[in-house]
Amino acid sequence: MKADRQAPIGVFDSGVGGLTVVREIMRNLPDERIVYFGDTARVPYGSKSKNTVIRYSRQIVHFLETQQVKAIVIACNTASALALDTIEKEIDLPIIGVVKPGAQMAVETTQNKRVGVIATESTIQSGLYQQLITEADPAITVYGKPCPLFVPLVEEGWTKDPITEEVARRYLAEILDKDIDTLIMGCTHYPLLRSLLRKVVGEKVTLVNPAYETSQALRRLLRELDLENPGNDELGRQKYQFFASDGVERFNAFAHSVLPEQISDTKQVQIENY
Amino acid sequence: MKADRQAPIGVFDSGVGGLTVVREIMRNLPDERIVYFGDTARVPYGSKSKNTVIRYSRQIVHFLETQQVKAIVIACNTASALALDTIEKEIDLPIIGVVKPGAQMAVETTQNKRVGVIATESTIQSGLYQQLITEADPAITVYGKPCPLFVPLVEEGWTKDPITEEVARRYLAEILDKDIDTLIMGCTHYPLLRSLLRKVVGEKVTLVNPAYETSQALRRLLRELDLENPGNDELGRQKYQFFASDGVERFNAFAHSVLPEQISDTKQVQIENY
Repeated sequence: MKADRQAPIGVFDSGVGGLTVVREIMRNLPDERIVYFGDTARVPYGSKSKNTVIRYSRQIVHFLETQQVKAIVIACNTASALALDTIEKEIDLPIIGVVKPGAQMAVETTQNKRVGVIATESTIQSGLYQQLITEADPAITVYGKPCPLFVPLVEEGWTKDPITEEVARRYLAEILDKDIDTLIMGCTHYPLLRSLLRKVVGEKVTLVNPAYETSQALRRLLRELDLENPGNDELGRQKYQFFASDGVERFNAFAHSVLPEQISDTKQVQIENY
Repeated sequence: MKADRQAPIGVFDSGVGGLTVVREIMRNLPDERIVYFGDTARVPYGSKSKNTVIRYSRQIVHFLETQQVKAIVIACNTASALALDTIEKEIDLPIIGVVKPGAQMAVETTQNKRVGVIATESTIQSGLYQQLITEADPAITVYGKPCPLFVPLVEEGWTKDPITEEVARRYLAEILDKDIDTLIMGCTHYPLLRSLLRKVVGEKVTLVNPAYETSQALRRLLRELDLENPGNDELGRQKYQFFASDGVERFNAFAHSVLPEQISDTKQVQIENY
């Protein structure tokens, strides 16, 4: 059976960070419908083990399948790094993560063959950014640095704060010393620190946002599979739907700071049941 | 059937923070055996909803029951504040949390009837510290302040860092302005910031550590129920056992920074199955 072009894209993340990917899909693929799931009951994934992240991701994919999505985007760097490989073998739906598009853009961007990656501990430890980049171009050296305080600082709302800037200077000192010309913001929260990071890294370093690159990769994938939404959806179905495993009010409040429009009808899902 | 005096105490927390309570029990009740469970797969609880924290706590209590514990200590302020009330009605075992002992000590300590509480968002929002203190002495005013960055700062190891001090100054400015003479460290990680907090609050404010107070409350409870371990346990059973729902190596590493002895045989438990 031909998949329904008007079916939504399923997007998931460990919590609210993946909304930066939703934002890019809304901007760049405005005809597509989206079903988003944020695992706010079990957030964060960035310090969890591979097996646990795979188990959690699998439950979410099962949930998204019940929503008749036509494709899935793992909008979480940690889950993309730890679970995509396993999950894509288990399902029939097309599925992409954020790591590969981010890695590809870094390969295209760097001139001096020195790339930095900032991300969660689990993403850095997985070595996937490093691996994909050096597979594409063995001449590139990749310097990774876990930045575990960035997510709580963003969630505290201190995105333009001198304390956050001080933390960023400390985290980045070592990789800036390596003379990188490209820095991947390898965690979905980090693009919310873009202007602060720009200040810390200076004008000569290009910041790569995997969220944007993923929206482009999704467009290519849908086109290839002839799954693009023709945009004449008159069925009155809700274009964007949001689900979370806990704290929907908190979710809505954070979403408001990321997305162009306010959302208020996020539904709670008991995700262990999937 | 009479409970076994030589049975262990079950202690649980959302992650590693409850080890500060374990440390106090080891010091102050050296004859007691301990089974500890840290829910590292779903940490933190501090930003989660009441229903989710109850559901998670219930699973952990079921697990501890399989370990034949004689009493349970909820070594997590958030779970104590959100779940103890519900759970204690559901089980036959004696169970205590950390909030009540901390609140009691604050009531006994304050001279000027102005008490501060720093804790997670969920603990502050629950209002339980405030409620217990004003029930005991309606003349006391309680000032609560959520400090969500303290846990990640402690887990980053920055317990004596100028950045953490700056964060603490900002978090505490408002409640220090209220002229408090007593401050409850209402999250299990916070005692690890004791010397830094001492510097920020000055010498005139008494810091209350609910972990210590809980070990004293546990002693009174066991005595009352005639459940104290006589200390002549020659069965060769392991005195302290540790379980976590994820990342046991990480757990062991952090435990090493809190406990007097190194632990290496933490076992992983799939806690959703309980």
